[in-house]
Amino acid sequence: MERPRHQGMAKNTYMRWRLPLVCLLWEVAMIVLFGVFVRFNPEADAHWEKEKGNRNLTSDIENDFYFRYPSFQDVHVMIFVGFGFLMVFLKRYGFGAVGFNFLLAAFGIQWALLMQGWFHSFENGKILIGVENLINADFCVGSVCIAFGAILGKTSPIQLLVMTLFQVTLFAVNEYILLNLLHVKDAGGSMTIHTFGAYFGLMVTRILYRPNLEQSKDKQGSVYQSDLFAMIGTLYLWMYWPSFNSAISEHGDAQHRAAINTYCSLAACVLTTVAFSSMLQKKGKLDMVHIQNATLAGGVAVGTSAEMMLTPYGSLIVGFICGIVSTVGYVYLTPFLESRLHIQDTCGIHNLHAMPGLIGGIVGAITAAAATVDVYGEEGFIKAFDFTGPYKTRTPSIQGGFQAAGIFVSLLMALAGGALVGAILKLPIWGDPADENCFEDDVYWEVPEDEESDVYHMHNPDKPASP
Amino acid sequence: MERPRHQGMAKNTYMRWRLPLVCLLWEVAMIVLFGVFVRFNPEADAHWEKEKGNRNLTSDIENDFYFRYPSFQDVHVMIFVGFGFLMVFLKRYGFGAVGFNFLLAAFGIQWALLMQGWFHSFENGKILIGVENLINADFCVGSVCIAFGAILGKTSPIQLLVMTLFQVTLFAVNEYILLNLLHVKDAGGSMTIHTFGAYFGLMVTRILYRPNLEQSKDKQGSVYQSDLFAMIGTLYLWMYWPSFNSAISEHGDAQHRAAINTYCSLAACVLTTVAFSSMLQKKGKLDMVHIQNATLAGGVAVGTSAEMMLTPYGSLIVGFICGIVSTVGYVYLTPFLESRLHIQDTCGIHNLHAMPGLIGGIVGAITAAAATVDVYGEEGFIKAFDFTGPYKTRTPSIQGGFQAAGIFVSLLMALAGGALVGAILKLPIWGDPADENCFEDDVYWEVPEDEESDVYHMHNPDKPASP
Amino acid sequence: MERPRHQGMAKNTYMRWRLPLVCLLWEVAMIVLFGVFVRFNPEADAHWEKEKGNRNLTSDIENDFYFRYPSFQDVHVMIFVGFGFLMVFLKRYGFGAVGFNFLLAAFGIQWALLMQGWFHSFENGKILIGVENLINADFCVGSVCIAFGAILGKTSPIQLLVMTLFQVTLFAVNEYILLNLLHVKDAGGSMTIHTFGAYFGLMVTRILYRPNLEQSKDKQGSVYQSDLFAMIGTLYLWMYWPSFNSAISEHGDAQHRAAINTYCSLAACVLTTVAFSSMLQKKGKLDMVHIQNATLAGGVAVGTSAEMMLTPYGSLIVGFICGIVSTVGYVYLTPFLESRLHIQDTCGIHNLHAMPGLIGGIVGAITAAAATVDVYGEEGFIKAFDFTGPYKTRTPSIQGGFQAAGIFVSLLMALAGGALVGAILKLPIWGDPADENCFEDDVYWEVPEDEESDVYHMHNPDKPASP
Repeated sequence: MERPRHQGMAKNTYMRWRLPLVCLLWEVAMIVLFGVFVRFNPEADAHWEKEKGNRNLTSDIENDFYFRYPSFQDVHVMIFVGFGFLMVFLKRYGFGAVGFNFLLAAFGIQWALLMQGWFHSFENGKILIGVENLINADFCVGSVCIAFGAILGKTSPIQLLVMTLFQVTLFAVNEYILLNLLHVKDAGGSMTIHTFGAYFGLMVTRILYRPNLEQSKDKQGSVYQSDLFAMIGTLYLWMYWPSFNSAISEHGDAQHRAAINTYCSLAACVLTTVAFSSMLQKKGKLDMVHIQNATLAGGVAVGTSAEMMLTPYGSLIVGFICGIVSTVGYVYLTPFLESRLHIQDTCGIHNLHAMPGLIGGIVGAITAAAATVDVYGEEGFIKAFDFTGPYKTRTPSIQGGFQAAGIFVSLLMALAGGALVGAILKLPIWGDPADENCFEDDVYWEVPEDEESDVYHMHNPDKPASP
Repeated sequence: MERPRHQGMAKNTYMRWRLPLVCLLWEVAMIVLFGVFVRFNPEADAHWEKEKGNRNLTSDIENDFYFRYPSFQDVHVMIFVGFGFLMVFLKRYGFGAVGFNFLLAAFGIQWALLMQGWFHSFENGKILIGVENLINADFCVGSVCIAFGAILGKTSPIQLLVMTLFQVTLFAVNEYILLNLLHVKDAGGSMTIHTFGAYFGLMVTRILYRPNLEQSKDKQGSVYQSDLFAMIGTLYLWMYWPSFNSAISEHGDAQHRAAINTYCSLAACVLTTVAFSSMLQKKGKLDMVHIQNATLAGGVAVGTSAEMMLTPYGSLIVGFICGIVSTVGYVYLTPFLESRLHIQDTCGIHNLHAMPGLIGGIVGAITAAAATVDVYGEEGFIKAFDFTGPYKTRTPSIQGGFQAAGIFVSLLMALAGGALVGAILKLPIWGDPADENCFEDDVYWEVPEDEESDVYHMHNPDKPASP
Repeated sequence: MERPRHQGMAKNTYMRWRLPLVCLLWEVAMIVLFGVFVRFNPEADAHWEKEKGNRNLTSDIENDFYFRYPSFQDVHVMIFVGFGFLMVFLKRYGFGAVGFNFLLAAFGIQWALLMQGWFHSFENGKILIGVENLINADFCVGSVCIAFGAILGKTSPIQLLVMTLFQVTLFAVNEYILLNLLHVKDAGGSMTIHTFGAYFGLMVTRILYRPNLEQSKDKQGSVYQSDLFAMIGTLYLWMYWPSFNSAISEHGDAQHRAAINTYCSLAACVLTTVAFSSMLQKKGKLDMVHIQNATLAGGVAVGTSAEMMLTPYGSLIVGFICGIVSTVGYVYLTPFLESRLHIQDTCGIHNLHAMPGLIGGIVGAITAAAATVDVYGEEGFIKAFDFTGPYKTRTPSIQGGFQAAGIFVSLLMALAGGALVGAILKLPIWGDPADENCFEDDVYWEVPEDEESDVYHMHNPDKPASP
């Protein structure tokens, strides 16, 4: 099991003091900041009984908790099991995939509660949180999980924590620009989560380019069991995506509609993914990489428009296209990006999040621009796009323009932010693995000996008992 | 890895143009049909704000979304993770089990939305869909997943898509006959889903009988890890079955009661399954096949009656019986069906769905026939059986008779439909695998080399590095 | 595969008549007792329509089902998938972990419905059950799953059923003392579930001490895949713990708040677990045992206080501490307990449930004692602690005292009960495995040959085809 053969830098990966220090200091910082700033919002505070009176509510069921908690839990599963297990496909990086995802997400949601809180839930010097904040924190961390997909297997846990710190910060800024300044709709985050997260991650991995990565090429694939584990991630992402895209939509029809549209888009996406996976392979066989990833592109691509009157057939069309785009991306674009642009994208997030995210932004802009009072009804029209207050005079086509602007802002923020953070992560102090140790749990984890067979074949004279 | 030894038909399994063609054409057809027919129902449409006024609703929480969405998601998990992983038990067919299930279900829900929509949600030339339609589409596809269990490992993905097309169609017709013409109650689908799906699948596998299947006998078992994966499927089916049986029941007590009854039945079923699994094995050891499957029979068998006043102890009795029936079926009936009736039932759906489905239909008929105004209350009695309009004069015993008729209709539709579809699937154009390639992912999937050990034992001189 | 070498007692483990007898007799007893006692409560009964009128409810959404069913399902997943898969970490005990957990929980929930029903839902000679009873039954069984963790791999299924019978009984008594006599708050069960369950299990394993357990030492570890399976358990427990701690809290703000506090505590706990896991390992590597277990301690430790005004930063502090305590426990305390106190704690429940449970009880007592009308509001103050009726005059500090008393009662009940039940389980009639067969599925399960490789390397002349 001894490994540090011809590399002096293997020492770098010694985490014993650095990782604990970062974790403990940052968690203490969280406690202090939460202590100063974070309180319950009126729906979670013990004064709710009185608040109910103030709002003329007759029942506890009107508490936002009951509108959103089931969706929150679905989103929560997507972040921790969905993203975590989707990345377990690597044969010897299962601990890192699911474990580091767990770590960065657990830190990220705390920091996101603060960052998003300062921008959106800040009242009288306090951040007031409720279930919607928890969902938004999970969303924000989702964009970090996406970026993690690009650099999977090539970074130390400290690098991941550093990236999380910066990415969450930039996410919150970008989200503020889009939602508050541009007054853009993006409930499922095609722009704020997917476009931003993916291009951020792609830029980071570009900066961290490893010319000699082929040294660990043999570990960059899957084995039979790891592909099955990854399907757990895929299916939970696929099944719960309707909850993701509807989780923070307006109560009532918007949540309802967002779930239906997403369900439709995802269903169509599976069919075209299978079609192109088979078509693009010489022997016509299906490739698990496509089934695990491209089937999800349909959910990404209706992230902006699902709560709008996209209609079920509109959703099918979006899903249809995205299954194709994403699968083609895996076959042709990923190798191209690696060889020509030096973008080493472990999980192919360019195909699953970047391109479908852009498509999602565009579909959202078009759907918004095409909105009419006739289709939405008078109240529905105003409610759907929040054309109230200073936005009273916005027309659908202007809204469409702002939506389109949101795509570019997200893209720019992602690329600039990714370049900055990539440069920071390149500093030789974070303990990243050597090229030949990438995609290998053994560097950062106690890995059990695979002595399974020993148990049953104890008399095998060739194999000594494990220590 | 080269396999096509003494079989010229191995060529048949080449999917490269056939599978993409079917997927793409059918998906385009879906888009066209959705474009013509499918719209949002008033609770998912942007006019909801107005609709609320029309219905005198004061809160968005009255939107059906909040009554049914959590159950919908549970059902969704059952279809994709539950059925998908339950079938991963085969040692070399995990990709096919979870992947083909994914494919057929993704297509099936779209076609089901249309078929069921035409029968049940058709207004002014449009199918109006909401969350209940999504649940029903999942239910309909559930019956296809069941049938898939019988032919698991022996069919091509195209055959599965063809079967899905026909089975969903026939399901919708049968469901229409039962629910609308016979006015039968079957919220959890003992008859419409399980009896129909199982006998349909058994008939299909009978028609597709392979006399030389023992050529792939060595692959028709499980390995340690695949049994653990299958337990994921089992447990999600078992845990969420209360949601399945209550998902489309009337709001309020019916949903509540259906969940409780199902919970009780399933609990009892585990105990008798364990008892008989141990009792019927010479050494008294437990058999994973039974634990994975027979424990679920209790859920199937209260599918009709769970929303009725079956009572918790009634549910325990049903679960008690079904654990026994199902386990005994696995031990004695499955081999008998194969050797004598030439029914090769890969997953033993006869024991998990067919017999418990019939029992469920019978229990439903009895429970309905035994209903009294005293037990249900006056309003409850009418509401539970929908004794309104043209059914105002129905008595419980008449209802029981119609329920019983529903069993026979489902059985006949299943057998006739299965025979027809089996004959279609027998055509030599769908690319089914040769006998010696059954239960083998390698035929339709890119399968990674299992080189796991190589990673750690790189210096092993006997094993060359994988390509 | 033949194993019974030098042990005549191997015969003991023959389950063929004993296990079926226990399962069948007990299930019949359940049916009889349910028949005599268990009925639906008014919200699940068909008279609900009338009951709605009596209670002046205008909508079915006011049915408790809609307040609690999503949380119930999350708790259900925690018990069956969470605990079940968390214990799959052992390399050759996956079937036993997930299968026996399934068995004991399925029996336990029935017996818990009765025991808890007699204490809490007994009216006019009947136990009236609804969704809250299902949650409480799952909770009760949770304490048995915890105790199972201590004796994992060392007992027969009959012993587990016997333990379940007694532990559920004692749980219900202890719960009655705490909730009804001491009028203590413990919605998430730091005391009733975790402290009680863990010390009960630790006492049982102490009584069942096996001096020669090192004979099966080689099987007491994990392999790569089993650690990944265990992470499924970990993540579902971690993600759904907010539902666990809020599932039976009062409607409205209490449920909302409990979920937020738990979410915060768990997030902080991950960071300190990672920190100390790395810090306490010589090479600074992370240990999967810690990630799988200690990350959950934060959920345990806010089980009493989560529904109180613990505040988000208070929750972070609790989680921060518990990640440390739990990880340190795994490294130093578990070996100490084994070598000095002869407590063989397979899963380390002392670190995950016992110590965090005690901390949870203490935090709850302090939080209750620190409550003020100012913080809770007048109505909130009374509602949060149910200071009504005979408890009208209780002050926070008195409540804090009673909370503290609850910890000691739970501890005493657990130790006394565990000693008693341990003595019963020590009787040589239950078929427990010999020391060298512990942690080995082969004793009680039909285990498939691991011939996976055979499928692909059929021509290997050294390995004969499996029978």
